[in-house]
Amino acid sequence: MSIAEKISSSPDALQERFRRVRDDSLDLAAGVGPEDQMLQSMPDASPMKWHLAHTSWFFEVFLLEEFLPGYTPFDEGFRYLFNSYYQAVGAQYPRPQRGLISRPNAAEVTAYRHHVDSHVQRLLDSADDTTREKIERLIEIGCNHEQQHQELMLTDLLHGFAQNPLSPAYRPWRQAPLHAVRPLSYAAVEETQVMIGHAGEGFCFDNEYPRHKALLQRHGLADRLVTNAEWLEFMADGGYDTPALWLSDGWAARQAEGWTAPLYWRQDGEGWTSMTLSGRRPIELEAPVVHVSYYEADAFARWADRRLPTEMEWEAAARGVARSGNLRSSGLLRPAAAAGGAGLQQMFGDVWEWTQSAYLPYPGYKAAEGAIGEYNGKFMINQMVLRGGSCVTPDDHIRASYRNFFYPHQRWQFCGLRLAADAA
Amino acid sequence: MSIAEKISSSPDALQERFRRVRDDSLDLAAGVGPEDQMLQSMPDASPMKWHLAHTSWFFEVFLLEEFLPGYTPFDEGFRYLFNSYYQAVGAQYPRPQRGLISRPNAAEVTAYRHHVDSHVQRLLDSADDTTREKIERLIEIGCNHEQQHQELMLTDLLHGFAQNPLSPAYRPWRQAPLHAVRPLSYAAVEETQVMIGHAGEGFCFDNEYPRHKALLQRHGLADRLVTNAEWLEFMADGGYDTPALWLSDGWAARQAEGWTAPLYWRQDGEGWTSMTLSGRRPIELEAPVVHVSYYEADAFARWADRRLPTEMEWEAAARGVARSGNLRSSGLLRPAAAAGGAGLQQMFGDVWEWTQSAYLPYPGYKAAEGAIGEYNGKFMINQMVLRGGSCVTPDDHIRASYRNFFYPHQRWQFCGLRLAADAA
Amino acid sequence: MSIAEKISSSPDALQERFRRVRDDSLDLAAGVGPEDQMLQSMPDASPMKWHLAHTSWFFEVFLLEEFLPGYTPFDEGFRYLFNSYYQAVGAQYPRPQRGLISRPNAAEVTAYRHHVDSHVQRLLDSADDTTREKIERLIEIGCNHEQQHQELMLTDLLHGFAQNPLSPAYRPWRQAPLHAVRPLSYAAVEETQVMIGHAGEGFCFDNEYPRHKALLQRHGLADRLVTNAEWLEFMADGGYDTPALWLSDGWAARQAEGWTAPLYWRQDGEGWTSMTLSGRRPIELEAPVVHVSYYEADAFARWADRRLPTEMEWEAAARGVARSGNLRSSGLLRPAAAAGGAGLQQMFGDVWEWTQSAYLPYPGYKAAEGAIGEYNGKFMINQMVLRGGSCVTPDDHIRASYRNFFYPHQRWQFCGLRLAADAA
Amino acid sequence: MSIAEKISSSPDALQERFRRVRDDSLDLAAGVGPEDQMLQSMPDASPMKWHLAHTSWFFEVFLLEEFLPGYTPFDEGFRYLFNSYYQAVGAQYPRPQRGLISRPNAAEVTAYRHHVDSHVQRLLDSADDTTREKIERLIEIGCNHEQQHQELMLTDLLHGFAQNPLSPAYRPWRQAPLHAVRPLSYAAVEETQVMIGHAGEGFCFDNEYPRHKALLQRHGLADRLVTNAEWLEFMADGGYDTPALWLSDGWAARQAEGWTAPLYWRQDGEGWTSMTLSGRRPIELEAPVVHVSYYEADAFARWADRRLPTEMEWEAAARGVARSGNLRSSGLLRPAAAAGGAGLQQMFGDVWEWTQSAYLPYPGYKAAEGAIGEYNGKFMINQMVLRGGSCVTPDDHIRASYRNFFYPHQRWQFCGLRLAADAA
Ligand SMILES: [Fe+3]
Ligand SMILES: [Fe+3]
Ligand SMILES: [Fe+3]
Ligand SMILES: [Fe+3]
Repeated sequence: MSIAEKISSSPDALQERFRRVRDDSLDLAAGVGPEDQMLQSMPDASPMKWHLAHTSWFFEVFLLEEFLPGYTPFDEGFRYLFNSYYQAVGAQYPRPQRGLISRPNAAEVTAYRHHVDSHVQRLLDSADDTTREKIERLIEIGCNHEQQHQELMLTDLLHGFAQNPLSPAYRPWRQAPLHAVRPLSYAAVEETQVMIGHAGEGFCFDNEYPRHKALLQRHGLADRLVTNAEWLEFMADGGYDTPALWLSDGWAARQAEGWTAPLYWRQDGEGWTSMTLSGRRPIELEAPVVHVSYYEADAFARWADRRLPTEMEWEAAARGVARSGNLRSSGLLRPAAAAGGAGLQQMFGDVWEWTQSAYLPYPGYKAAEGAIGEYNGKFMINQMVLRGGSCVTPDDHIRASYRNFFYPHQRWQFCGLRLAADAA
Repeated sequence: MSIAEKISSSPDALQERFRRVRDDSLDLAAGVGPEDQMLQSMPDASPMKWHLAHTSWFFEVFLLEEFLPGYTPFDEGFRYLFNSYYQAVGAQYPRPQRGLISRPNAAEVTAYRHHVDSHVQRLLDSADDTTREKIERLIEIGCNHEQQHQELMLTDLLHGFAQNPLSPAYRPWRQAPLHAVRPLSYAAVEETQVMIGHAGEGFCFDNEYPRHKALLQRHGLADRLVTNAEWLEFMADGGYDTPALWLSDGWAARQAEGWTAPLYWRQDGEGWTSMTLSGRRPIELEAPVVHVSYYEADAFARWADRRLPTEMEWEAAARGVARSGNLRSSGLLRPAAAAGGAGLQQMFGDVWEWTQSAYLPYPGYKAAEGAIGEYNGKFMINQMVLRGGSCVTPDDHIRASYRNFFYPHQRWQFCGLRLAADAA
Repeated sequence: MSIAEKISSSPDALQERFRRVRDDSLDLAAGVGPEDQMLQSMPDASPMKWHLAHTSWFFEVFLLEEFLPGYTPFDEGFRYLFNSYYQAVGAQYPRPQRGLISRPNAAEVTAYRHHVDSHVQRLLDSADDTTREKIERLIEIGCNHEQQHQELMLTDLLHGFAQNPLSPAYRPWRQAPLHAVRPLSYAAVEETQVMIGHAGEGFCFDNEYPRHKALLQRHGLADRLVTNAEWLEFMADGGYDTPALWLSDGWAARQAEGWTAPLYWRQDGEGWTSMTLSGRRPIELEAPVVHVSYYEADAFARWADRRLPTEMEWEAAARGVARSGNLRSSGLLRPAAAAGGAGLQQMFGDVWEWTQSAYLPYPGYKAAEGAIGEYNGKFMINQMVLRGGSCVTPDDHIRASYRNFFYPHQRWQFCGLRLAADAA
Repeated sequence: MSIAEKISSSPDALQERFRRVRDDSLDLAAGVGPEDQMLQSMPDASPMKWHLAHTSWFFEVFLLEEFLPGYTPFDEGFRYLFNSYYQAVGAQYPRPQRGLISRPNAAEVTAYRHHVDSHVQRLLDSADDTTREKIERLIEIGCNHEQQHQELMLTDLLHGFAQNPLSPAYRPWRQAPLHAVRPLSYAAVEETQVMIGHAGEGFCFDNEYPRHKALLQRHGLADRLVTNAEWLEFMADGGYDTPALWLSDGWAARQAEGWTAPLYWRQDGEGWTSMTLSGRRPIELEAPVVHVSYYEADAFARWADRRLPTEMEWEAAARGVARSGNLRSSGLLRPAAAAGGAGLQQMFGDVWEWTQSAYLPYPGYKAAEGAIGEYNGKFMINQMVLRGGSCVTPDDHIRASYRNFFYPHQRWQFCGLRLAADAA
């Protein structure tokens, strides 16, 4: 069993995809200075330069060292330095100290990337048919892996910039289309059995497997995300000061951290502003709330006399929705107001949606053998599932069965929420 | 909605039950010195004296102050001192400092208990029919609450005694019946829909509600618990030193805490001993392993190429099993070897069994209004469900639908495991 | 070299002294319940029961095991359990867990004390002349050691009681003599050479040695302690909110701990109260301020445009003052207003006076060989010297050359201050 | 009173000195990449870029804003960002997060420096006679301040580089002159009164004042520093494993941190290596030991049956020694073997020498009014005095009366030791 369950690209398409994904990473880093690329503002986050190196390491260790005869690593020290968490590969440079890797510098990491790229090309050119399938599978995984890190490059940079009182901007501000947000309505779903997990063509991660039967209870699913305007109502109603709305661990986190608003929010004069990838900006009332923890999302839902959806409810609903939205290619790099129209809005893009489902293995799940099996399985505890991608997710990286996961206290990802309602 | 969903005792039976439960607490404390009753060896644990007072506080605050006209609290300061976590009642004396409550002393707490008991009796004698139902419901909850704390009195005392190099004993050692443990076999279950949650007569907590339909996958359930002998095999095979067997958070805990065996185990000379409620004793090979965290249980299951059962699988199986076993009344106060015989063994008693289910609300669950609603609901995050009761659980306190819950790193409860197998 | 530099008691006087000191400890514990004797409210403090046992351990390990042929320890486990910090004796039970020693219980510790006492008597009765001198020296040290712990018994109990919202009292409140405190005046001292350190007859600790020459600068020494009334002026003038008055580490402590008044102070209604050994009581304006850290004392002195005295200045001044004052025998167990009259007031008793001298070895100091040499020398870093004894110091335990020492952030001792002035 | 007690430069000499000191900082940063300049490997250390900006901030805030009419700050945000610890100037950007200041980038900080330099020049050109003296005094302080930070630039960079497993080098390795180190001998000093503190011409910091009389005890002072060869003897003799040699706090630090050798030492194969500013290199046996804490230095001295000198003993001895040695201009950037010859060796340069003197105010010391008074005075607690400068100290920045100070656990500075002996 592999962590990548399905691939269907032709060899040419795969090479093209490899080049495009690798180029995307450098495009994302364009204009980001060498100092900015060093930023590690908390242990959960990593420097952009580290992401650029680690994604190359992934190809080097899992592909080149395994399959390219006579391959010499670019630098022997990198095996340790850029190993994220693969115990089977060996010891790892301590995660909280990634911001101390001034060497290799940015230029050397770029050289490392080119070195890996050219050797992957050489491997593709020379591979015989027996290894080609394994290689293609690993390249597919490596591309998807790199896309995950592309999202983190932006998420982590935002967190780094937010620590700087000068509020630097990553990209210039762009006006979002204006939409008056309509009142929430709930799509009704009857009790039903559905199939959950990846099906059909295309890549997926191993945690989307095995596809299996699940039972949905009768419920309603909100047709759009919760907005900043609605979040301000929650705040005005004392949401952050009412322990009865919070889970016990959530209240403890709120007290310990002094939360009174979403991460990056600040009361400036009469209004609220938030740090964005285009610097500090006034809150957009119609836009979805973002950078809230599971604890906050859950408290909001309780305040609204609603709940968060389960990941199964979300996935079943998403099957019928076009896989598009305010994803990275929109260039906004922030969530935007729902456009309106019939049906479920904002299912893909804008913000990762907290679900009330703990991140656990699907029935019959087994991690792959070896280092690559550490990719997903060993994180199946203490985290909650998020669905749908965000405004910094690569467009072709999201799908209805995609399972993201974070700890309930974490807020630095582009996380928001959609409500669900129990049947009356 | 109340946290107690069902009661069916007659008034007389209830009074009798109240008296018995209250007496049981004092019986458990008999022979335990005033200093021993002060022990708080970690923030998760509480002193026995605190349990004795807090269970009385529960009746005083939720029953007497609400329903007994003119009731004067035994001591105004106790409202704060013995409030565990009820935000709606008011501020709480800090949990980690419960071991600093030298006053009230043991005698004063006993007086407090008698004061509360006599006033509950007075309330029962004087209540009119309109309030009687509410009162009885609260007494029933209060008795079940006290039984939960009775289990903690022993669990917490053991942890306290284990810190003392003199290894004090709570009760003398009693020989357990000797049984040769048979090889594991797995009861086969086909894919099926079942009803989960409490049904029929008798008390249950609100977290066992609403009863709802669930889908079981095809699987097998082990017919007995994992034994110390099997655990020693896991240890001998390097189980504690093989990161590939562990969840990532689990490995971090194992590294940070230096776990190399279950809690309380120590290598003494050639063999292993463990701290028990009868002092330090050699490991009994046939007895179920106990005092292991979820992380350890999960790693063991992975090592055995098995998994932990879900709470639904466990509950469905337990419906067909007699509600008896090595519970508190056996007087052993430690898990004991399976007796053998047909069918599932050790489903009730011996050890709380870790399941692979996160502790989350059942579909449609809503906590009760007010302080009493804080009893269960606010803990539904970050914890895993355990089933079946233990050797220190009161016999009439356990049932098939009963859901216990602890954090995956916790080991001081009487926790062990039963394996499950995916369908071939 | 020994840690006790001088002894001059006759054998009979020594036996009498031994009996009296040992009895004093039990007298101090009279009426203190077994639970109260368990209290350890922070790692710096120890339970009263531990003090009672450890002071016996001191005689057992250093005297009986060394000099009484065939002596069998009362309990083998105690060697580890009641070793405070003597690396040469062996490993030590972890200090922060002394509050978890429920066994031995209070009665068993009393039995331990009697066991040790009777064997010390036996040793004294049987010792030959060659060992007698060593024995007597160790008994003298052991008595002085026990007196130090007697002071800690009260200090630590107060800290433990202060954590209890019921504010228990150790002894009933007694009215102190009322005195109107006169304005401060400063005794002028010219530049001069003085001899510092113990001289003449009587016991002293090794840190009061070697006696040596020191140079005093011209200065003035306040003729009484700083009062609560004066401290309230400091508070009213924003003393706790003016970083310019504080040492950098002091300000960090004040910020981290949220200090706004001395330890145990609380604003109750319009006035301030403080926890005392007789429960919570209104602040006495004329009494010396107590339970302030070095950081606070130093900030106060800077606010007053004064400084703290050096330990040499204090000692030189104390040489001419009678060794009496509000010490333990007064029974007040709290500092009291200066009585007035000519000359320096309150030099002995009331509060330990912070000096601006770091606790460092005197020129030529060398710790004794072996475990007993760990008594004082290894603490000569990071602490500041205090002089003069307090209201809980045994009357015959203080002298002009006595050096006490605590970390600058510590407040739970009976610490206060006297000002000094540089020459104009 | 000012923190700078003496200046005697002519106006032209001062301008020349200002230019030279400012240029020196940029020279030190030459060849250090923008990422390297971002490194902050612990809260005690600061990024090189921060040092470059903060030293400019010092001139901007204390000189330009005060004395240059109409001066506009280079960037309003810098007042907060580059304030180290001056409460009187306002709030400070959190010290542990200095490594997160990616903006301003290195080029912008260089521009900031030029901006400040040109305005200082303008101020000097335009100042009238009444302000000239104040200005010159502040420039002198600012230059000395910048030189202190120059030393930290190298010290902190070394610590940053040491975290990187690639062991980067700041400057190429240069061979040091080879010297066979002669046996230690001790210069004998009789009991005597001396004058301590700065005297005569030239700049000094306020902590070198007031000059005052002090009494030296009879003693001997070692004629050279302790070498690596001697330190290896200490290690071989179990120095790091013998608690009896250590102060109690020192032993706790050694245990908590796992010290078994000086900072940066590593056992590579058969020998020891150490990180240096020229990368990782084998230990040079004849060179002075460096990067040891006070605790280690004190333990070594006790092992050798010696002690550390007092700062008065050191200063009195240094008065008669030429102010030269292995300082920064030697270009070695590491301590080197003593050259031999008559008299005291290595008094200036090589390593800062721990003394047994706590860093406390001299008799009569008073900090200056206002922000500048925070420079030294508020750190006079919990630290120990070091004397003599090191291999990274600017040559004209050291003198006999110069007092450096660090906490006893700190090791990242170029700290070593010289022994002293009590009179026989
Ligand atoms: Fe990765
Ligand atoms: Fe409770
Ligand atoms: Fe002691
Ligand atoms: Fe500075």
